[in-house]
This record gives sequence, C-alpha cells and structure tokens, in this order.
Amino acid sequence: MIIVLKPDAPADTADEMLARISKAGLKPLHMPGAERVVLGALGDERVLAELHLESHPAVESVKPILAPYKLVSRELHPHDSVVRIGAMAIGGSAFQVIAGPCAVETHEQTRASALAAKAAGASAIRAGAYKPRTSPYGFSGHGPEGLRILRQVGDELGLPVVTEVMDTADVEVVAAHADALQIGARNMQNFALLRAVGQCGKPVLLKRGMSAKIEELLLAAEYLLAAGNDQVVLCERGIRTFETATRNTLDLNAIPYIKQRSHLPVVVDPSHGTGIRDLVQPMALAAAACGADGLLIEVHENPAAALSDGAQSLYPDQFQALMEALAPVVRAVGRRLG
Amino acid sequence: MIIVLKPDAPADTADEMLARISKAGLKPLHMPGAERVVLGALGDERVLAELHLESHPAVESVKPILAPYKLVSRELHPHDSVVRIGAMAIGGSAFQVIAGPCAVETHEQTRASALAAKAAGASAIRAGAYKPRTSPYGFSGHGPEGLRILRQVGDELGLPVVTEVMDTADVEVVAAHADALQIGARNMQNFALLRAVGQCGKPVLLKRGMSAKIEELLLAAEYLLAAGNDQVVLCERGIRTFETATRNTLDLNAIPYIKQRSHLPVVVDPSHGTGIRDLVQPMALAAAACGADGLLIEVHENPAAALSDGAQSLYPDQFQALMEALAPVVRAVGRRLG
Amino acid sequence: MIIVLKPDAPADTADEMLARISKAGLKPLHMPGAERVVLGALGDERVLAELHLESHPAVESVKPILAPYKLVSRELHPHDSVVRIGAMAIGGSAFQVIAGPCAVETHEQTRASALAAKAAGASAIRAGAYKPRTSPYGFSGHGPEGLRILRQVGDELGLPVVTEVMDTADVEVVAAHADALQIGARNMQNFALLRAVGQCGKPVLLKRGMSAKIEELLLAAEYLLAAGNDQVVLCERGIRTFETATRNTLDLNAIPYIKQRSHLPVVVDPSHGTGIRDLVQPMALAAAACGADGLLIEVHENPAAALSDGAQSLYPDQFQALMEALAPVVRAVGRRLG
Amino acid sequence: MIIVLKPDAPADTADEMLARISKAGLKPLHMPGAERVVLGALGDERVLAELHLESHPAVESVKPILAPYKLVSRELHPHDSVVRIGAMAIGGSAFQVIAGPCAVETHEQTRASALAAKAAGASAIRAGAYKPRTSPYGFSGHGPEGLRILRQVGDELGLPVVTEVMDTADVEVVAAHADALQIGARNMQNFALLRAVGQCGKPVLLKRGMSAKIEELLLAAEYLLAAGNDQVVLCERGIRTFETATRNTLDLNAIPYIKQRSHLPVVVDPSHGTGIRDLVQPMALAAAACGADGLLIEVHENPAAALSDGAQSLYPDQFQALMEALAPVVRAVGRRLG
Repeated sequence: MIIVLKPDAPADTADEMLARISKAGLKPLHMPGAERVVLGALGDERVLAELHLESHPAVESVKPILAPYKLVSRELHPHDSVVRIGAMAIGGSAFQVIAGPCAVETHEQTRASALAAKAAGASAIRAGAYKPRTSPYGFSGHGPEGLRILRQVGDELGLPVVTEVMDTADVEVVAAHADALQIGARNMQNFALLRAVGQCGKPVLLKRGMSAKIEELLLAAEYLLAAGNDQVVLCERGIRTFETATRNTLDLNAIPYIKQRSHLPVVVDPSHGTGIRDLVQPMALAAAACGADGLLIEVHENPAAALSDGAQSLYPDQFQALMEALAPVVRAVGRRLG
Repeated sequence: MIIVLKPDAPADTADEMLARISKAGLKPLHMPGAERVVLGALGDERVLAELHLESHPAVESVKPILAPYKLVSRELHPHDSVVRIGAMAIGGSAFQVIAGPCAVETHEQTRASALAAKAAGASAIRAGAYKPRTSPYGFSGHGPEGLRILRQVGDELGLPVVTEVMDTADVEVVAAHADALQIGARNMQNFALLRAVGQCGKPVLLKRGMSAKIEELLLAAEYLLAAGNDQVVLCERGIRTFETATRNTLDLNAIPYIKQRSHLPVVVDPSHGTGIRDLVQPMALAAAACGADGLLIEVHENPAAALSDGAQSLYPDQFQALMEALAPVVRAVGRRLG
Repeated sequence: MIIVLKPDAPADTADEMLARISKAGLKPLHMPGAERVVLGALGDERVLAELHLESHPAVESVKPILAPYKLVSRELHPHDSVVRIGAMAIGGSAFQVIAGPCAVETHEQTRASALAAKAAGASAIRAGAYKPRTSPYGFSGHGPEGLRILRQVGDELGLPVVTEVMDTADVEVVAAHADALQIGARNMQNFALLRAVGQCGKPVLLKRGMSAKIEELLLAAEYLLAAGNDQVVLCERGIRTFETATRNTLDLNAIPYIKQRSHLPVVVDPSHGTGIRDLVQPMALAAAACGADGLLIEVHENPAAALSDGAQSLYPDQFQALMEALAPVVRAVGRRLG
Repeated sequence: MIIVLKPDAPADTADEMLARISKAGLKPLHMPGAERVVLGALGDERVLAELHLESHPAVESVKPILAPYKLVSRELHPHDSVVRIGAMAIGGSAFQVIAGPCAVETHEQTRASALAAKAAGASAIRAGAYKPRTSPYGFSGHGPEGLRILRQVGDELGLPVVTEVMDTADVEVVAAHADALQIGARNMQNFALLRAVGQCGKPVLLKRGMSAKIEELLLAAEYLLAAGNDQVVLCERGIRTFETATRNTLDLNAIPYIKQRSHLPVVVDPSHGTGIRDLVQPMALAAAACGADGLLIEVHENPAAALSDGAQSLYPDQFQALMEALAPVVRAVGRRLG
C-alpha cells in the first residue's frame, strides 16, 4: 500500500502513520519527495485495508499494491480448480454447456426445453424457480413447486440442475433440490446470501453483478471460499454500459483476465450478455475462443410463449446449430465439448 | 406499447399479434408502412409487459409508451407525499438532515457522533449495525448489539434513528429497534428484501443502486408500495460511471426528474455520492438547490479512527460549517431547515 | 417515428403535429389512448428527424422506428462489401491481420517491427505518424517524416500501409503516402475530418469512439459514404466503462450486431481493447470466432523501449504465437487467414 | 510514480529500472517486500511518463503519485484566474450567465433570442455557426455567414459572443468574429484543434468530452496553456453513463473537485447536461450552489421551431424565471449575478 500525503500535511503525520503501520506488523517505508511525502506499507493488503489510513485528513490518496483477495488467487493456488456439479466437471479439459429455459413454467415446458438441450449436447440444465424481476408485476417464479419440477426433470433426464437462490431463507430448500446454486447478478453483493450459500455444502455458480468490477466479483467469491465453500464457478454475464443496442455489454476481456489471476473456472452467459437471440451463437463461440470453461444458455421449447427472457432464448433448432458451430471452435483451442 | 416488426415478418404476424393484444383487453393499432409494419397496443403497460411480444421471432423491437410504475407515480397521486420518521416529516416544506457515523462502533462513538449531528441541527441519526463490505475481511458491523446501542442513543438524544437492513432474516429485529429501515444500494434489487420490508410497518429509506436507472429505482419503490408500505423515501447516492476521481458520480439530475414524476420524497447522500470529505458540503448545497427534500450525511466524532468510510466522513466542525452554509441555500429555494 | 404527447397536451396539438407530418410528405397516424395521445409518422427517419417534433412543449417523448442510417445499412445493400487496401481485401472470405508498432519512431524500428509482422503472416502494416496523446507532454509522432518512413517500409516489404490522420489540414499528405487512412477513436465525431476523408479517394479505417454507441459509429460511417467514399472498414477497439482492470472494455457484441445490420467489413483491435499484452491473443481469437473480418494489432520489435502503448504491444514471438493460435479458430468458423 | 514488479520478475529488473530512473534525473527508491518488489520514482510525473516503465514485461503495474498536469494546477498558481471575454469577467466574485440559441438560424431568430437573454440578465451570447451533428443529414450550421450574424447581433446588443470552432481550418475566421472560441465536447481531444486554438489569441471555453475523465479535461486545458493561451474557461456539460432518462448525466461533483485543484474558472451547461427543458432551472441552481463560476444555457425565441436542441432550449419566459430563481441562490453562496 502506498500512502501519498497532502502537500500541506503536518510534519509529524508521516511519523504517526509509520508507527501505525509498524504496530500492525507491517513493513513501513518513508519516501520524502520534493512535492509530496510518500509512505509505503508492505504486507497483507487485508490487514492494511483495516488500518483505514485513507481517513486521515492529511492523506491525499492511498493506492493498494497487491490484490485484496487471497483464497481465489492463483498466487496461493496455482493450478486450475475443477468444480463438480453432479456428473459434470467444470474447469478441466472439457468445455461444458449448461442450458435450459429462463424459468420453470410448467413440467411440460421444463421437460421439453431440457430434452432439447440434452439432445444437442448440454451437460446440465438451468431454469429458475425464483426469478428476480425489475417490476413487482412480473412473473416471479413458482418457488418450491418449481424446484420440485426441476429436480424431477433432472432425474428423469439424468442431468444435474443449476438454479438460482435469492434469499437466505430459501438456501436450505434450494440446496435440497439443486446440484448447484446460482447467485444472480443482482445478488452478487448480497453478503448475507454469500455467507449462507458459502455454508450450504453445494457448488455455487456466482454471476458477476451488472456493475461489478472484476475485482469485486473475485471478492464476492472470496466470501464463499472464506465461508468454507471452494466449489465455485464464476460467470460473466455482461455489464451495464452506455450502449443500448444490446441488453448488456458482454465483457469477454474478463475471461482471460480472471483465468490468469484466479484458479476458479469461469463460464459465460451470452443470453443475458447480449439480450438478443441472434447474437447468442457468435458470442458463445467467442467465449470458447478466449478461454472460458463453459457456457450458460437460455433455450426454450417455444420462446415466443416464454414468461420471461423470451427475446434472448434460443429455439431448440438454434441451440442445436450453436452446438454444431461450437464444436470446431472448442477443438481449435485444444479442448473438447463435455 | 409500440411493436415494430422485422422487414421479413410473415404477413400473418400482424394479425396474430393484434389478436393477442385485443384478447388481453387492450386497444390494438395497425400501422403498415413502406419499410416496416408497426403495431400499437394502448393500455396498462403492466399488462402489456406480460404479453412478452418482444419474444416473437418476427418482432424487431418493442417500445413502451407509458411508465411501468403506477403507485409511485404522480399521475395517480399528484400531491407530494410526506413521510414521518419519528418526529421528523420528510417531503413537506422542511428540509431534513439525517446524519451520523457510517457504522455503530461503540456506544461512546455513536453517542458523540450523534450529539455532534444534533448540535449542528440534524433531525435524525443514521448509523449502521449491519454493514455491506466488498471484502469478507472488512468490519461488517455489530448486528443486534449495534441496534441496541443505536436505539439507546436515539432515545437519549430524542432523535429518530435510521439504519440499514441487509437480509430478510433481520427485518424483524431491525424494525423493532429503528424508526426507519434503510435498504442499501447493493440491495435495491434484492426483491425478497423489498417484499419483506414492504410488510414491516416502518418507514423505508430506499437507496438507488449504483447501476440502477431512475426507472428501476422507482420500480423498486413500487415493490414496497405494492406490498402495502407507502412510507417510502428515495435516496440518490451516486452512480457508477467511468469517472474515477470521485467514488461515485452523484446524479443530481435525478432529483428534479423524480420529483416531477413521483410523489415520494427524495433525499441525497453526498457522502457516498462523492466519497471525498472536501466535496460533501458543496454537493449538499447543490442537492438543496435542485429540489431535494433532505440529506443523508456521514459525520463521525473522529473520522481518522473510523472503522469504515472515514475518508468521506465529516469532522463535527465540518458538519457544523455545512449546516451554516446550507441554511441560506435552503431559504433561497423557499424552504426551511427541519 | 412515434410521438407521445404529454397528459396535459392541448387538444389541438395532435392536429398541428399531424399537419406538419403530412406536409413533410410522411404518413401520419393518430392513436388516442386513455392515458396519452400517441401519434405516428411513417417514412424516412432522416426527414422525420428534421421536423424536430421533440422540441414541442406538449411532446413527452419521440421514439424512432427505423435506423437513422441508410447508406451503410444492409437493407439497401444486402451483400457484404469487400474493401481493398492495396493488395489486401477485407470483408470477403479471407480473415486479415493488420499489424505493426503504435508509432513510427525510426526507420529501423518500423522496418524491424513490420518485418516481424509480415513474417508471422500479417497482410498489412499499421503505424502512426500523428499520435493523439492525452497529455501535451507526450510523444506526438514524427508527422510527414513518419509518413515517408512508413511508405518506404511498406514498399520495401510489399505490404499496404494504414495510418492515422488527425486534422483536415493533413488529409492530403496522409492520403499521398498511405494505402488507407485511419480515423481514430477520439476523432470519430470530428465531422470536418469525416467529410474531408470522405473525399480523399482512399479507403478508410474508422475506429469506434470510446463512448460511441454502435448507432453513432454507423452514422459516422454514413458521413463517409454520403461524401462519396464507400471503401470503409469499421473497427471495434473497446469502449469506456466503469471497469478499470482493463484499459477499455472490448465490446465484441458489436461485431455480430453490426454484421447483421451493415454491409461494411468490421475489424477488431484487441491491443487497445484490452491495453494488456497478455490479453491480446485470447481476445484476437474471440474476435475471429464471433465473425470479425480481421484484426488490428500492435507489434513492436522491442515493446519495452516503445515510445507509446508499449504495455499493450506484442513482442515478435508473441505475435507469431498469436497467428499460430488464430489459424485453427479462423478455419473453425469457415474462413482462412488472408 | 510507484512501480510494482511481477512476482516472477528477474532479479536484475529492479536494478535496471532504478538505473533508468536515476538517469532521467529522478529520485529512485527500492522497496523489496515479501510478495512483490516495489520501486518508487519521485519527481516530475511528465518526465516519468516518458520513461514508459509500464511497457517492461516484468512490470505488473505503474501508479502515478502526482497529477500529470502542471500549468492548470493550483499548486503552481494558487489564486483563482479571472478570464475576460469582452466586458465579462469569469472566475471572480460575479456569477456569469452565457445564454442564447443552440444555432444561428437567421438574423431575426438570433437577435430575438439574444435580446430575450439580455433582458433577463445574461452577460454574453452563445450560438453556433458550426454545429456538430451525429447524422450527416442534420442541419450543420451556416458557417461564416452565421459568424457574421452573430457578431452583428453581439455588437448591436453590446454583449460579447461565444461560438464553437470545429476544425483547425476555421480557427482564424472564428477568432476574427468571436469574443471567445468554444471547443465542443466531441473535440475535447482533437489535439490539432487544441494546439491551433491555443495560439489564436482569444479566450477559450473548453467543454468536457462526454466520456472524458476530469483529469483528461484538465490535460486538454493544459494543451491550451502549454500553447500560450491561459484565458481558458472549463465547462461541465454532462457525461455519458448508463442512465437514459436524461440525455447526459450532469457531473456536478466535478465542479468543487476542479475548483480545489485548478485555478481556472468553471461553468456548467445544464441544457446539454440534462437534455430536458424542465430540468434546466433546478440544475442551474445546483450548479451555482456547488461553486460554479457561471452557466451556459440554451434559450430560443421559439424552441418548438428550433433547428437543433429544441427539446432542451428554454422559452424566453422560462429563462426569465430561471434568472429570478437563480439570484437568491447565488447570493446564498456569497456571490452576485454578473
């Protein structure tokens, strides 16, 4: 951590700060310059952050040197983590596709959509029983009944199921039905939920918040690992920018950036990342090309009748075409479809 | 709602859509043009949204005409709502200042900070017992013990207290101790929490999410009103943009924009909205000038020792100076300090 | 165009507007609803925009139906345009790589960098003689002398050269030396420059502005085509967002989005799009996978000594590795390296 | 400047870098830590930036300590600069309002609009003869004929005139007619134009680019001062964010932030900063309250007939009302209307 003092900082400020740094067990450094006094503190950034040196009235700025996350970092854990969700392993040589409808609407719709996903080569099913909706008047999911349908369909087709949990009060029931719990973009910094899911004993799919920096996504994952759960898959699903042509801006830069810094597997959701059905396939291919470990894709047996996200859901034949186009790209980067 | 069909839309698509619009009890319109067929559907946008016309493969785009919120809108409720938090009324002619430390650290610190706030003219105290922290290694608040301290200090000084609730499991205990519950920026779209707080029987201070559009803030408030709670105060606290000089970009445009469209009172948090102590006073004055109903300000008896947000917390004498500078601006726009 | 009137619009406003619409030769529509009066105007959006209906005090909002660009649109020109820059054709079945140093520093450095680019399979050279620099104290290029060096190196190696022009006063000299003129991100809406380059008779590489919407990029290209130049290649180079981990956020969504709506070829610049050397290769592969027609890549014989953009420039062996990794991805999407 | 080396940086990298730092006449610092080697370089950040240390393959990150601008900084020039545009002085105790139509359309329209502005108390006139337009089909101004009209109106009413210049080729003619040259948001980083205007001998109104960081605005101003022109007024006019309710997000945080760091006067343009007529007055008041030195406001004798920006232009009576509401706010912050 580098501490820059204000030009008019009293002469004894530097001594006071260096003493606080030493007292916390860190290595202090004094760098008096012509225009500013600069101090350094070397050591664990987690301890440094708790010194709150930025609060001091004589401090102009504080700049961290090291990343504030530890458990998710490749520095402590150099090898890729492989996360197992039922029979599916994410993070190894296989490229995995998790597909299904946005929401569990009925048993028939869920089964038909999942069947289409499986027929085309998906390794797991996704569908929501609890749906975050911007408006209180939208369809917000069938809750526990939706979970039962999803579990039934997963068992019937022999595929693991991933589904979202939105409230600490629901963690237990979702964990009882799902093979992995999804934390959605809007809840990426719902810290009570992160702590509860960190203790639930099931793998987690953690989606990046729509305005979360990559570092904040990694810190949200750090919550899960710090709570004892290291079965975490990260998911890039698009961020909010000024561009309105697409629903979100899919930030694929994040894939190689995270893979170089964290051992956790990363998947991409091109359905939310674009919001436009016709863009899903090209962006799925791009995700595979830049090093993602898998995809999360919305497929619906009949998108035109979907209760949510219909405009970005693929028709079964479009998903089939996507999987066919995906296979050679996955091979081109030295992997295989899971 | 305006529905634009794709250039290559099959001829019977328009008829099919017009039939769906009619069946939903809405007024359909057919506008065939040279380059595109355009359809209209007039009526309640909430019903329209549930038709999911954007999911149809022959639809190019769907544009709403009316706002998707109703209960928070001035169209249904033309007069300003006044929300009472203890003895403090927000939304009327008085301009209210809610101040206090970021977090309840100790009884002494909370009391001293609240006393400083009261001495300078604050009408209510704010302080957090549950603190959202980006890193799992940060101080996350004292929980129930913090609530007790805050209640005690509030009673002692005769000031109402506002404090954040982060989890549905805590709504009851927070409601039992606080005069108003705050929903923080990270939880603005925690819909389970919105529903629970909507039923808690206490006033709510709803902060705008850091990447929430104004319309989404109003829809989050609509959740509260739809759940039966109309004692809602909105809070602009800065949005996330590309600018890194300040912690957030305080979007004061939102104040007159919301005041013209909603009857709910709106306050501004210049502490989070800037993240820099020296910017708090000028932005507090700007908030008053553009029509806000009050302020939420972080004041700490000793910011340099604060466990969180010290860099943006005012010293007691700075808060005193702010209140003195604020008074003539509040008068200049025809109001009085509450 | 859809015009929504305010709830309190005077009764004769609709008639007045419909008359203006008719007078402009467009088809007017009247849609009175319960809550709002909605008007339609069907026809050329370019004419509609000049009616300035949004200025009327009784108008709440105006929503366009059709895209405001024409010449760049696939609707008028359904087949892919192929742009020829010297011997290189962009937009056809070949995937083209344009590479070279950020700036022309010396003849030796330019030649060595271009040679490395050519050896690895680049089809054209890029390097700047005029460099936009945020600070007035940075190296801003060698100007005409740089152009001469670049031309010489291009002729020597038998490769076409692409270079940036920043001022209308320099268009002639740049056009005299380069095979294609680049308009940089900061000048995407320098309309005087767009008009001048539109008349220069040379192909143009138009980079997206760092905060330009896709529609604005297409309208900037429309300036070039409207001025008589249809040899235009678009370039996605990253947009400015809240994310600070990378220099820009590469918006690959834009590639399939533009390819579906415009006939112009599109290339991607992963060097500026990431700003980090280690991210260039994965994002180059992603660009190829999602349908880009080529790449623009910074390669320097010795990035550590580069006068600009060194941190994102590849070493010759890194560029060689990129090209080797790129080939199978390009084949996987049914194309070949140019 | 702080240089953080990668964990695997070769042992001799630090020595090599320290030598380069010394050779450039700067003070080198060596800070070996447990997890990273950190280097410091103290001195002029302008010299440091040209060392390009971030290009080195063993460097993880480079963090500046001091601001990269000098001439615009308060550190070198502690007192407020006062800029004189004709008889109007900006930056002193008077709060100045510059008003007028978006574009010079006709002599009558310009004169009537300017007269309305003057009658209500404006100190200078603004109107464009060269208009930047996103679409090539929009009205782009009358050019030299517009300049003549504007000069004539200014002389007639005895008010100084401010008008935009968009191309280096036009600097001379604009400088010959105007009392101050405006550089618009889209040209804030048109460096050729900055250099040319820096040498024109007339005051400059420099608008912040719509995606420019505050630091970049100050560096653009540094171009002007470095070219010899210190008569520079900065203008905040809104930035581009994800919010679509307003045309731009007016970043008033920038006002006190800049005023604390630069001696240059700063004005605010609430017309572009909101894009909505009804928001102009409240945001004008907010600008005055947070310390701006003046305003730039669009007033048109008949906005409904304006050829550009009609939706954000005030009617004469609205401008009159704004000025009346503004006066007490300006007094409340200890200034007077100019």
